[in-house]
Amino acid sequence: MPDVRIVHTVPELRDALAGVRPGLVPTMGALHAGHQALIRRSAAENGVTVMTLFVNPTQFNDPGDFAKYPRTLEADARAAAAAGADIVWAPAAPEVYPPGFATTVTVAGLTDRWEGASRPGHFAGVATVVTILLNSAQPLRSYFGEKDFQQLQIIRRMHRDLVLPGEIVGFPTVRDTDGLALSSRNARLSSSARAQAPVIHRALNRMTAAARSGEVRCDVLVGEGLAELRTVPDAQVDYLAIVDPDTLEPLGTLARPARSIAAVTLDGVRLLDNMAIQPGSRPWDS
Amino acid sequence: MPDVRIVHTVPELRDALAGVRPGLVPTMGALHAGHQALIRRSAAENGVTVMTLFVNPTQFNDPGDFAKYPRTLEADARAAAAAGADIVWAPAAPEVYPPGFATTVTVAGLTDRWEGASRPGHFAGVATVVTILLNSAQPLRSYFGEKDFQQLQIIRRMHRDLVLPGEIVGFPTVRDTDGLALSSRNARLSSSARAQAPVIHRALNRMTAAARSGEVRCDVLVGEGLAELRTVPDAQVDYLAIVDPDTLEPLGTLARPARSIAAVTLDGVRLLDNMAIQPGSRPWDS
Repeated sequence: MPDVRIVHTVPELRDALAGVRPGLVPTMGALHAGHQALIRRSAAENGVTVMTLFVNPTQFNDPGDFAKYPRTLEADARAAAAAGADIVWAPAAPEVYPPGFATTVTVAGLTDRWEGASRPGHFAGVATVVTILLNSAQPLRSYFGEKDFQQLQIIRRMHRDLVLPGEIVGFPTVRDTDGLALSSRNARLSSSARAQAPVIHRALNRMTAAARSGEVRCDVLVGEGLAELRTVPDAQVDYLAIVDPDTLEPLGTLARPARSIAAVTLDGVRLLDNMAIQPGSRPWDS
Repeated sequence: MPDVRIVHTVPELRDALAGVRPGLVPTMGALHAGHQALIRRSAAENGVTVMTLFVNPTQFNDPGDFAKYPRTLEADARAAAAAGADIVWAPAAPEVYPPGFATTVTVAGLTDRWEGASRPGHFAGVATVVTILLNSAQPLRSYFGEKDFQQLQIIRRMHRDLVLPGEIVGFPTVRDTDGLALSSRNARLSSSARAQAPVIHRALNRMTAAARSGEVRCDVLVGEGLAELRTVPDAQVDYLAIVDPDTLEPLGTLARPARSIAAVTLDGVRLLDNMAIQPGSRPWDS
């Protein structure tokens, strides 16, 4: 296993960095190939790469979900090292939230819809902990997966608004060979649900293809995706929408590059995915 | 006039700093000798001192108050230079709050009482802008007057919680020869109100003296202060209290170092002041 240094406190982290501004890959552990792709990208672009491993209690609206979240520090440190991380920063909760902690970072508007509507307080928890991680590590670049697209856009907005250090890099979703977006939650799928789960990617693909063929009415495009999702009767659609990529507001007409976003529950596991979608060539353009 | 460089944008500021981490003195302009004392302290402790001059719209709950706040950039830059500032950073509002700005920093608990109760949203505006200023300037030390004691304690808490850069330095209140705490608002006092205003300092002094003499019952100590304030019938007391210096919760018994805090309106101008207060020698100690 390549060398990786495990640190816990901010002074230990700063000591390990010795004034070098790293690439930062924040994670909650349970590493999969998507996380490793972020780490590899960071290792290619920065002299030192820090992976944070912190299962953040404040972004779980369900305490049971927090309790059963997998915690596998040693395996995660090995996976991080294999991908090129130099430092694993795994703070204890009281290090991040000392006694008397009272501060919250909120992002208006962007956090209300979609995941925000079904998980109250979730994005305030994310925004606050990311602010703490970035201020602590002072990275040159921080890497986040596009799989959690709303989270990425909220972090971009907050990063700009609060003049947080470095640059935010969004990284394309890493998928299994059948198209399913990699997620730590996939491990919870039953084998039959796992076999059905790629329908989400197929639905988004079908919408992007219909747009490429010239369809610009978003209700029609979403209808295409829903028709695909209905091929799996067990799939419960929480939302499927085409949104402005910056504001996350739903669009009526696809007039510029946008994003399709989906949340679908299969066998009790809520899965997210999203895809770029843009107006394609229309008959009268050719 | 000593050299002072005036910058407006964050890139200009960073260019002027050339990688040096400064001492930072955030102000809303309308400089008086209290601000100059902060600047002198910073100039003594840091290689470069930046004074920010930004009349922050989000911390005014009354738009009229914002509109009539004095704006005197040239005089302020001269006063800052005379006290030893190297750079005056005077950002325009759209530089601090670009289009689409959506992020707010809040501090629970500490912000609810006292000034927070009478100025809804005020402290969220302060916490958010101070986060932006500190992240932009990356100071080694930031200087705030104790005159706004609740603000100082909120900034300390937020600074610790969000791991903001550098250190927060609280500076003792600078007073006029008759004891009145210096404040940009004092200029709005009529000459008769100005003559009456030192009663606030006398009231706090009387409370501290009573505590030194052995009185530990906070209601009795506050009664001493109120008796002093009643010698000026025009003084409207918004609050007078003895509080825990960290939580700002009112105390029943003075068992450890605490803070007396006051807000008094004279002739339509709301004046703040505060003072350290601690248990003195008691008969059974001697």
